[in-house]
Amino acid sequence: MMMFFFDKKKKLVVSVDTYIEGIHFINFKDPHLVIKKIIRSSISDLICKGVYPKYYFISGSGNKDAFTKSNLLKISKSLKTEQNKYKIILSGGDTVFSNKLSFTITTIGFSKNIILRNKAMVNDDIYVTGNVGDSFLGLMLLKKKLKLNSKLRKFFILKYYKPDIKYKLIGKINKIANTSIDISDGLIADMNKLINDQKLSYKIFLNKIPISKNLSKIISIKKLSKIKLISNGDDYEIMFTARKSKRLLIKKISKNLNLKITRIGIILKDKQKSCILSNNNKRIMLKNKGYFHKF
Amino acid sequence: MMMFFFDKKKKLVVSVDTYIEGIHFINFKDPHLVIKKIIRSSISDLICKGVYPKYYFISGSGNKDAFTKSNLLKISKSLKTEQNKYKIILSGGDTVFSNKLSFTITTIGFSKNIILRNKAMVNDDIYVTGNVGDSFLGLMLLKKKLKLNSKLRKFFILKYYKPDIKYKLIGKINKIANTSIDISDGLIADMNKLINDQKLSYKIFLNKIPISKNLSKIISIKKLSKIKLISNGDDYEIMFTARKSKRLLIKKISKNLNLKITRIGIILKDKQKSCILSNNNKRIMLKNKGYFHKF
Repeated sequence: MMMFFFDKKKKLVVSVDTYIEGIHFINFKDPHLVIKKIIRSSISDLICKGVYPKYYFISGSGNKDAFTKSNLLKISKSLKTEQNKYKIILSGGDTVFSNKLSFTITTIGFSKNIILRNKAMVNDDIYVTGNVGDSFLGLMLLKKKLKLNSKLRKFFILKYYKPDIKYKLIGKINKIANTSIDISDGLIADMNKLINDQKLSYKIFLNKIPISKNLSKIISIKKLSKIKLISNGDDYEIMFTARKSKRLLIKKISKNLNLKITRIGIILKDKQKSCILSNNNKRIMLKNKGYFHKF
Repeated sequence: MMMFFFDKKKKLVVSVDTYIEGIHFINFKDPHLVIKKIIRSSISDLICKGVYPKYYFISGSGNKDAFTKSNLLKISKSLKTEQNKYKIILSGGDTVFSNKLSFTITTIGFSKNIILRNKAMVNDDIYVTGNVGDSFLGLMLLKKKLKLNSKLRKFFILKYYKPDIKYKLIGKINKIANTSIDISDGLIADMNKLINDQKLSYKIFLNKIPISKNLSKIISIKKLSKIKLISNGDDYEIMFTARKSKRLLIKKISKNLNLKITRIGIILKDKQKSCILSNNNKRIMLKNKGYFHKF
């Protein structure tokens, strides 16, 4: 769940997110990792819009087992690490008793302008930062649906818990993107969301969607489906569209920031024609608007 | 639970509150009333500090029974009523699935200055708006710990669900109060909170604490304890302290706004001497800093 709000006159940006155990994070066995995940997910929403997060509030509901002294210490330590990493200030925090564990995080930033959704233009290139799919593989491992050696296991699980959000793109993305979104539901589901109010479609090339070397290896060894792996969010990479005339600038920014930015497709006119093209240029059929809940 | 935040430079005021079924509201049999209660509780916190609430966000977690179509309609209708009544704008709202019903409300306002806690001065008068205790009697009725005729029952239950928050005092209270709080935990517990960081004490006269005619009647018929009734929050009246020199101005404001404001005590020097004086001037012993959880 995500709520986002912008008051242009006051230059105020607010985002409110609720995370529930079993839905938005798998369990609370590693409080320090869960906290990192939900903080990063929360500020990711401001980052993808080109806004520096400044303040945040965290309210936790849970039982005594969730908020033991030891867990509270871990939570507090994790919060401090994230605060330093992303220059955010904890402005309020509290815990209340509940049988169900959940957190609500309110994030506040200040900005004159933000990058909005539904502002794509015909013939815009579609880009995505970093790699997608690793986080979902991490979740599969946590759910014991897959086995890997401990080194790879750690790699993917940390991608799930500690998404590498693109903080350094703030201040740059405003110069290139027409519209943007952070990938939380899955690349395709979020692509649909990005232009859902527009009479536009997209064409995305499956083989251009960037994945890590590790994921590429696992896909071929375990014979997994790339389209399914990249369609199950929690990546928190930024997907955006930009004019063709921005290609050089985007290359330059990518190089200067040492940040992978990959062109994966194009925005088209006709609302009906959205498609993902496979390696042999065949259209891949998508169910449920790009959600693939079954693995 | 309450979190409050003020950024003086940005003139930004933020309050975040979580309400859990069985703790902050008794149950969800009357969604329209619960919604009114939690909206009013949330904006009450800004009001008592002299700040107009402007935006709010509501996030609900609950199961299918809580968020049926019929309930969502009732919730939406209630929100609209409250929005019109208090000139607030719904800036984001969502529901997520959870076995435990809870709401988190984020309220935002803008103000150059706010009335802070712990700013009482020696010899300040202590005031409270409206009447206290009705809400707790309403809760007792809902908990079936007391029986009354249907007319009185309705009166007290509506005081519990629809606290008469003092919106009209905004813009005036800033001129009179040194420090202020809204009564949510109980008059005495909140009095302790109001000056908890100060080397001060208070003397409050029990017979001066304002109660409704209905409550006064019930107290004498049912032989209830006034001190207990007024010590169990959810009143959302404003308690504040003010210099003696403000007495005339307070009388004038009270008259102009047609708003009951009662002087109930005085701020004293010595931290140890806080007391509630009974009708015959005897000190009433208080347990647990003014909380009386057993009835």
